[in-house]
Amino acid sequence: MGPSPSEAPRTDTWITDPGGEGFAQTYRVEAWLHDSRSAYQHIQVVENKDFGRMLLLDDAVQTTERDEFIYHELLSHVPILSHPSPRRLLIIGGGDGGLLREALRHPLTHATMVEIDGDVIEVTRRLIPSIPGDAFNDPRTRLLVEDGIRFVRETTESFDVALVDSTDPKGPSLVLFTSEFYGHLARVLGSDGVLAVQSGSPLYQQDVIALVRRNMTPHFRSVRTYLGTVPTYPGVLWSFTVGAQSRDPAALDEAELSRRMAGIATRYYTPAAHRSLFAPPPFLREVFAG
Amino acid sequence: MGPSPSEAPRTDTWITDPGGEGFAQTYRVEAWLHDSRSAYQHIQVVENKDFGRMLLLDDAVQTTERDEFIYHELLSHVPILSHPSPRRLLIIGGGDGGLLREALRHPLTHATMVEIDGDVIEVTRRLIPSIPGDAFNDPRTRLLVEDGIRFVRETTESFDVALVDSTDPKGPSLVLFTSEFYGHLARVLGSDGVLAVQSGSPLYQQDVIALVRRNMTPHFRSVRTYLGTVPTYPGVLWSFTVGAQSRDPAALDEAELSRRMAGIATRYYTPAAHRSLFAPPPFLREVFAG
Repeated sequence: MGPSPSEAPRTDTWITDPGGEGFAQTYRVEAWLHDSRSAYQHIQVVENKDFGRMLLLDDAVQTTERDEFIYHELLSHVPILSHPSPRRLLIIGGGDGGLLREALRHPLTHATMVEIDGDVIEVTRRLIPSIPGDAFNDPRTRLLVEDGIRFVRETTESFDVALVDSTDPKGPSLVLFTSEFYGHLARVLGSDGVLAVQSGSPLYQQDVIALVRRNMTPHFRSVRTYLGTVPTYPGVLWSFTVGAQSRDPAALDEAELSRRMAGIATRYYTPAAHRSLFAPPPFLREVFAG
Repeated sequence: MGPSPSEAPRTDTWITDPGGEGFAQTYRVEAWLHDSRSAYQHIQVVENKDFGRMLLLDDAVQTTERDEFIYHELLSHVPILSHPSPRRLLIIGGGDGGLLREALRHPLTHATMVEIDGDVIEVTRRLIPSIPGDAFNDPRTRLLVEDGIRFVRETTESFDVALVDSTDPKGPSLVLFTSEFYGHLARVLGSDGVLAVQSGSPLYQQDVIALVRRNMTPHFRSVRTYLGTVPTYPGVLWSFTVGAQSRDPAALDEAELSRRMAGIATRYYTPAAHRSLFAPPPFLREVFAG
């Protein structure tokens, strides 16, 4: 059973996605394509001239047709390349399927995705099918609609790389930013394991970056924060944090990165730019080092 | 005589700065500090929690206390370092004084700034004094309140580096994007000359980047576009284009850049990141090459 779309027709208007206390990004809505409430959150899909179809959860833009590749490339390729031989992937969250799609371009043997909200999966597959692409039909994919923290607490399986594609640390996502959660992930990941998470805006969520780094540090040998530009996230500059046990993700060799990315055409991430992702401008260095 | 501030008190509200057809950035106004109309444009200064005091011209955010350093560092250091021995600087526009302040950190002997709108200078000096700093009192500075295109058409002086700090190419700024204007600048700049201009958003003003590159190319040997992130410009990603006669700005040596930047502490630009500014992600490469 899918979500129940709102019956009320809505007129042209603007949606607003706040950043800091005093600024926001706003988008004109050409069409309201979907509006429902799942057991976990408010799910909306709108059409916008500049970004195409946009998925909103609890009124915050999660991903859009036109710029989704930036976030998904950054949160998949960087950690996957940080593992010496990535075979088994775990994704927590990421219901839109874009991260899974991008990760599956690597020669993985297995990808488990644990998303708590089946409605997000259903709505995105139906209304923004270019984002998951064929990822959910890939024979390597196992899709579990359940609580991510319970999965990592209870599983006896092991993985090479784990990616956490969550909303901001509030409500049901809060547990996905705890030391306990990262500790469980470190256990299932083993001695070469790599974990990457989105860690918020370096401009107005420096507390989120600090929280992630503080809670990941006890469980991983290298903890590195890297930067990208996601046009539809408020402030555009966005951070990701990667923890790795055996190799420093910031120090990977460009020649090896290029060899492993051969045949994977990207639109944002490049091996040539890999190290520069980890070298923020001076005004953000303290945020990344804290 | 300064501008005449609006008498009407204004209440807390939001100002909106549009990007593409369907998106905008919006800022909550804590206080309206200034509102006047000069002979050329609508000038406003507002106070915002995240960005401090913000200067708006014709309702578009030009610069703010908190993030002005990014734009001003990028539009000064990159071209000045692209000249083998920069001594004489020309700035067209840049009435807020931030670009002049940043440029004067180099061992220039002379800086002429030609700004058409004296009211912008007066309002910024009075209400956002940290942006010009002491630049207008520097003995190397000559400030001319007059039409920039007439100045470059008529002057018999010569300069090493020219910086054009303009608003978008419409109304009075349109002439600052023409081949005729760039040709006059090439003439006054001579055989090692360097020109840099702001060239708009790579996301929704690709036509501006193309216009600048097309009109600069006949007059300069190397024409290179580089990228920065300006949080208070719509879309945040922002482009600059530099034309140079004797050296390729994208290929400068990090050791030389570091030597020449010794003692100049920056918060965004670094010699280590210099080349990466000229290496956009793949999805923007066509925009930069066109």
